[in-house]
Amino acid sequence: MFATLKFAALLLAVVVCWATQDYDYNDAEIDEEPTLGDSPYGSLWPLPQKVQISTVVFKLSGASFHIFDAKASSSGASCRLLQNAYRRYDEYIFTSSRKQGQNKSKKALASDMSELQVWITSADSECDSYPSVTSDESLTQYSLCKLYQYFNNNSILHLFIFSQKSINRTDIHDFPRFAHRGLLLDTSRHFLPIKVILANLEAMAWNKFNVFHWHIVDDPSFPYLSRTFPQLSQHGAYHPYTHVYTPSDVKMIIEFARLRGIRVVPEFDTPGHTQSWGKGQKDLLTPCYSGASPSGSFGPVNPMLNTTYDFMSMFFKEVNTVFPDAYVHLGGDEVDFSCWKSNPDIQKFMEQQGFGTDYSKLESFYIQRLLDIVTTTNKGYMIWQEVFDNGVKLKSDTVVHVWMGNKVEEELQKVTEAGFTTILSAPWYLDYISYGQDWQKFYRAEPLSFKGTDAQKKLVIGGEACLWGEYVDATNLTPRLWPRASAVGERLWSDRDVRDLNDAYSRLAKHRCRMAYKPSVQPLSACCGHSEH
Amino acid sequence: MFATLKFAALLLAVVVCWATQDYDYNDAEIDEEPTLGDSPYGSLWPLPQKVQISTVVFKLSGASFHIFDAKASSSGASCRLLQNAYRRYDEYIFTSSRKQGQNKSKKALASDMSELQVWITSADSECDSYPSVTSDESLTQYSLCKLYQYFNNNSILHLFIFSQKSINRTDIHDFPRFAHRGLLLDTSRHFLPIKVILANLEAMAWNKFNVFHWHIVDDPSFPYLSRTFPQLSQHGAYHPYTHVYTPSDVKMIIEFARLRGIRVVPEFDTPGHTQSWGKGQKDLLTPCYSGASPSGSFGPVNPMLNTTYDFMSMFFKEVNTVFPDAYVHLGGDEVDFSCWKSNPDIQKFMEQQGFGTDYSKLESFYIQRLLDIVTTTNKGYMIWQEVFDNGVKLKSDTVVHVWMGNKVEEELQKVTEAGFTTILSAPWYLDYISYGQDWQKFYRAEPLSFKGTDAQKKLVIGGEACLWGEYVDATNLTPRLWPRASAVGERLWSDRDVRDLNDAYSRLAKHRCRMAYKPSVQPLSACCGHSEH
Repeated sequence: MFATLKFAALLLAVVVCWATQDYDYNDAEIDEEPTLGDSPYGSLWPLPQKVQISTVVFKLSGASFHIFDAKASSSGASCRLLQNAYRRYDEYIFTSSRKQGQNKSKKALASDMSELQVWITSADSECDSYPSVTSDESLTQYSLCKLYQYFNNNSILHLFIFSQKSINRTDIHDFPRFAHRGLLLDTSRHFLPIKVILANLEAMAWNKFNVFHWHIVDDPSFPYLSRTFPQLSQHGAYHPYTHVYTPSDVKMIIEFARLRGIRVVPEFDTPGHTQSWGKGQKDLLTPCYSGASPSGSFGPVNPMLNTTYDFMSMFFKEVNTVFPDAYVHLGGDEVDFSCWKSNPDIQKFMEQQGFGTDYSKLESFYIQRLLDIVTTTNKGYMIWQEVFDNGVKLKSDTVVHVWMGNKVEEELQKVTEAGFTTILSAPWYLDYISYGQDWQKFYRAEPLSFKGTDAQKKLVIGGEACLWGEYVDATNLTPRLWPRASAVGERLWSDRDVRDLNDAYSRLAKHRCRMAYKPSVQPLSACCGHSEH
Repeated sequence: MFATLKFAALLLAVVVCWATQDYDYNDAEIDEEPTLGDSPYGSLWPLPQKVQISTVVFKLSGASFHIFDAKASSSGASCRLLQNAYRRYDEYIFTSSRKQGQNKSKKALASDMSELQVWITSADSECDSYPSVTSDESLTQYSLCKLYQYFNNNSILHLFIFSQKSINRTDIHDFPRFAHRGLLLDTSRHFLPIKVILANLEAMAWNKFNVFHWHIVDDPSFPYLSRTFPQLSQHGAYHPYTHVYTPSDVKMIIEFARLRGIRVVPEFDTPGHTQSWGKGQKDLLTPCYSGASPSGSFGPVNPMLNTTYDFMSMFFKEVNTVFPDAYVHLGGDEVDFSCWKSNPDIQKFMEQQGFGTDYSKLESFYIQRLLDIVTTTNKGYMIWQEVFDNGVKLKSDTVVHVWMGNKVEEELQKVTEAGFTTILSAPWYLDYISYGQDWQKFYRAEPLSFKGTDAQKKLVIGGEACLWGEYVDATNLTPRLWPRASAVGERLWSDRDVRDLNDAYSRLAKHRCRMAYKPSVQPLSACCGHSEH
């Protein structure tokens, strides 16, 4: 007879391996390199909000183990999201041991754990819908969103990854600290092949990131293949066939993300950062002047032409249909005024509008009209902090994205004082690399350290790690991003007090191995084969 | 009728693609980011000593092209090295276009280039021997060593890589500036799987590196499986089966390197950096004391025991048979005296030997005996600079390896003044990473800028790029190393005056693409899909 464990979606048995004896807990701030010991939490990453490890030990029966829907569950065989997750986790856990034929003929013992029942108690199954910023990701809510978090939850992985080991029964009650846990990838400065994006969505799920901020186009290239304006990528991509994202590529990425509880928020940054747009769309950009005549180069989007807004209307109408997420990122950062200033038509327009020589008013003029356009598509918008700083009138549900490295706390204070929702990226520019364990720097950052009321703090809905693409492409992206981004993942998921660097280092080292060698099961020390001091 | 080109081993036609019009030559020192233009030398890397590009244009016939031995050649079908190179380069050049079925049915035109004849004029074919520091690598010498350099030479690659393009006939006369162009990989701090090592030997050949400095063991792990002392890796490796280099692994690596003109110089660093040795070899390391009793930890190799030297004799006898290169690297760096100081037996020994409290005399005592042992195996030795600095008596053919970042020029001056051959690594610690284009820093370094006579300068036989393994393993090694190491490759191969950063940047960007996407042929801009600004 097999022991059967029933889980109420929130309770799960977790292996705690190489356990607690020589654990050296240290609350003090550490300035030296952390010590690589063992954590009482094994390789859990990010750390759940509540973990209780009991001394009851089970053995995992790799031979007969299976995951299935509990009888009382409100979701089951018809839920693609769920079934996909079962299959995926079965692969993570057992591929290697089954290949090796382990446990095939072994008889299961009485104390073996042989099945995992999944019990969804929410009546509203979200099997076919997209995750959103209001999706409840906590394991106490019994919603389906929880369930796939449950399956994204690397705790479940721990349950089985060492299938030859004994397992301590462990109760977990988990929920995220922040609702928006994003990662920005930049596919304009270097093109990123689909498989690189998918691999990183997978890694995101393992680290409980739930927003893929797709900085899809920028100055250097325009890889987004627009149905309405195919000439944009035809002329603006690095290559019109091999270095574009077709509508079906985009669909695939969105679905792959959805199955992992990840939103896809595209960014179409204007009016700056648009050089590549100009290659396929005549008159969209402002002609720059050298003295009295056009210099041949172009500046930001031309804000004085009606054709610009006609174009943007049609373009964002398409974006609205292609990207299901409730939000689109509109950029708005780093607008260089020098080209506008050089152009006599723009000068005249400034005069007509009564802007004087304040070009940020012209910027606001453009962005205001753009926001109106996007509002008609029923999308919410995110914008980089300059748009807020320049006093553009924003819808109340706008998300202000704080990225500038100076005066971060003041900015958060101002933005939330004005009542806007905000996300933080300033401490998490992962494209800036340095020697050694710089994950600690990302890990230490605390989004709520600014001065403000509780209501203000609540407006900080999360943050994003950014990997800009100046020096990143398919050849180096993944090892450059992971496990450094994992530090941000835990900061955004786990409790504010989870900041012990030694404990984090120990868990992160194991988590890194798991990511690097998934899904094969190897002895841990061998899997790593490393020493960081 | 096909046009047939005959090459006298040193003359070869080279494609110069996207040629010279907008080339912006700039001799001045550049402190800003270099400009990505086109070089008159296309994608040649490292730049040959002499290149002459004519206006005579050929088309390459991908359908019928083949490489074969000229009738008058002294080496041919029986030369494995040569045949292996033909096959390898045929693959680099044509795999992709043949797959795509290009040119299959096309008739070759009169101006097509359809064959490459290889004419070896040296009577002494070195088909079966190993490369050495005295191997003549210049294309004027007509030796076989030249021939495989000829095939390693990426100029030949240029000849064909863009098989759809027209080819300017180009004469190249080439030879290396320095005889020793090495790369250090560290397989102790993180284990590196065979395939990672092989991939990097291949990349080394593409960049004309000719020495693989294999820092095979160190404190953290001992992956070298010794026939004589199997317990060393049994207990000292991260894993005794999966994380070791067996005798046949080592053989394979050496042969793979040989076929590419690369020497394999192993480093067995003592008396420091030996923690992992102690796990499998009792009494080899010095027991450290805490007060009057042993602390349980161990220090450097114990220099006072005869058993130590018995062990080293047997060990290096094996090393001599396993590694065919004329040199072995004996390390000798960073010996920490604190453990020796703590040990009362060592204190007594110091007294007996009349060393007083000068522990560098004890270090010298050990190293002197080690050098004597290695000398009996007829191996030459390389050592890190401390051994020279500490005044250990060295054989006249010892290579002193300069690595310390401070007073580099003074050190080179001293070492060469003392008449020793030297190689330089101080400016090329590639494990130190930083944001942006740090290849320029490595590229700018000049090994002969120290003060000294011509005779002294001649003693600098080259240098090595070092990639220490603290933060490097199979997941990130290759993208972290390349193309940064390429900068060192050109510095060590090309003429001293080749230092134009704009020109180098242009060639390097293309060279990087070639390395990243070999052997498939893609449009260059698409292959890269990148912009560094």
